[in-house]
Amino acid sequence: MMKNIALTLSYVGSNYHGWQSQKNAVTVSDTLRTALTKLTGESVTLIGCGRTDAGVHAKIYVANFHSQTSIPMERLPFAVNTLLPFDISVSSANIVSDKFHATYSCTKKEYTYFILPSGIRDPFYINRAYQCHYRLETDKMCQAALHFEGTHDFAAVRSLGTAVKSTVRTIHWCKVHKLENGLIAICIAADGFLYNMARAIAGTLLCVGYGNLLPDDIPKILESCDRELAGPTAPPEGLYLTRLWYEKEVLLGHGVKE
Amino acid sequence: MMKNIALTLSYVGSNYHGWQSQKNAVTVSDTLRTALTKLTGESVTLIGCGRTDAGVHAKIYVANFHSQTSIPMERLPFAVNTLLPFDISVSSANIVSDKFHATYSCTKKEYTYFILPSGIRDPFYINRAYQCHYRLETDKMCQAALHFEGTHDFAAVRSLGTAVKSTVRTIHWCKVHKLENGLIAICIAADGFLYNMARAIAGTLLCVGYGNLLPDDIPKILESCDRELAGPTAPPEGLYLTRLWYEKEVLLGHGVKE
Repeated sequence: MMKNIALTLSYVGSNYHGWQSQKNAVTVSDTLRTALTKLTGESVTLIGCGRTDAGVHAKIYVANFHSQTSIPMERLPFAVNTLLPFDISVSSANIVSDKFHATYSCTKKEYTYFILPSGIRDPFYINRAYQCHYRLETDKMCQAALHFEGTHDFAAVRSLGTAVKSTVRTIHWCKVHKLENGLIAICIAADGFLYNMARAIAGTLLCVGYGNLLPDDIPKILESCDRELAGPTAPPEGLYLTRLWYEKEVLLGHGVKE
Repeated sequence: MMKNIALTLSYVGSNYHGWQSQKNAVTVSDTLRTALTKLTGESVTLIGCGRTDAGVHAKIYVANFHSQTSIPMERLPFAVNTLLPFDISVSSANIVSDKFHATYSCTKKEYTYFILPSGIRDPFYINRAYQCHYRLETDKMCQAALHFEGTHDFAAVRSLGTAVKSTVRTIHWCKVHKLENGLIAICIAADGFLYNMARAIAGTLLCVGYGNLLPDDIPKILESCDRELAGPTAPPEGLYLTRLWYEKEVLLGHGVKE
């Protein structure tokens, strides 16, 4: 019998050209699909909860696929993990309703951007956080972040590349936290993210932290819909997909504790 | 003028066969020496605060060398870091007294062993903690750890390989902490560590956690001086050098906050 199977997984994105299948590049989706094809003996089509860019990490990620496999769901994570490289790990498998679609059933996502403010590079955060060698005014970053909250046209903080009907999205929260371990975390939850939107918001908040933009510049930047007015797209290694919300189904994430 | 220069550094040990110079293997000491030789134009001899095994990490490490370099001490870390791979980073350089010797002047060291108890592997802790797939009774591990404290003959928890005059050492503290992020940390501070001693203690505490040894077995194991009675040497990826103490000089470390 054909089943719709939802997987939760996590991955360190450093060695991948993002989630989405690409010609001539190693991606998370292709790597996982190859493992599932080996395991089930079926040609598997994977649906992911969204695209992540090259070098971006996922503390949690959801993908679904249709299969007639007889492998019990509680065994599937162990079985597929033996066929995966160490930087990808499946943590659960569940049979879900036929209507479940990892992309379209997702109602909310949270990305967290981690910054390590430090004059000297820290080898333990190479490829795991953005190491920033300038002083950051985090109070101003906190103020600026609030301006991104709400329903806005986010055309000023996205890159062109993917055709979308509308650039209006709702940001449920955008908060800057100073963590005990010295990291700064920018947590952004939205009903959807435009291409590079999380990294463009992080880059704009970094500009505020440096003093090159003021918190009150943010509303004007959003209104302008002009990508040139916002800050640059922050490097991918600081970005993590940290939480996902689905209709009816509860999926726990790994966000920053507040 | 010849100066005695002390460096503090940190490194992710995964790609190295430990600190100590070896034939036909890449070590931290050789990598750092090559960078310092390029930088100063002198043939540099490095003295390290101790040996770390292949795959063991250092949140802090101290090494000293003699040099006539005119590079200002505040510039030296930046300059040498441009010549080092990303997994090694020098954070400070100071001119110290002629008598300072990174090994012999060190009065106390702390190692921390990190365990991630989890049924499913976590890609973010590959090579950064020991991922343990069994349930651990941490209360018993806490009790057992206390038995290692004090001055004892630690012959039962070391590997043969390095000739030492005495196998008596003083452990100032041996504590097991459950951290907020789900990790278990075994913190061990001593006046000196025998070969593999920190990992053998961690392996013995893991046996207590599994229920294969009881906390009250520890004194008998130490008295026996029999390596066979203690637990196995725990894998290197969980071990971090976290704090160092020197006569007169204060060196901050990166231990677990209590």
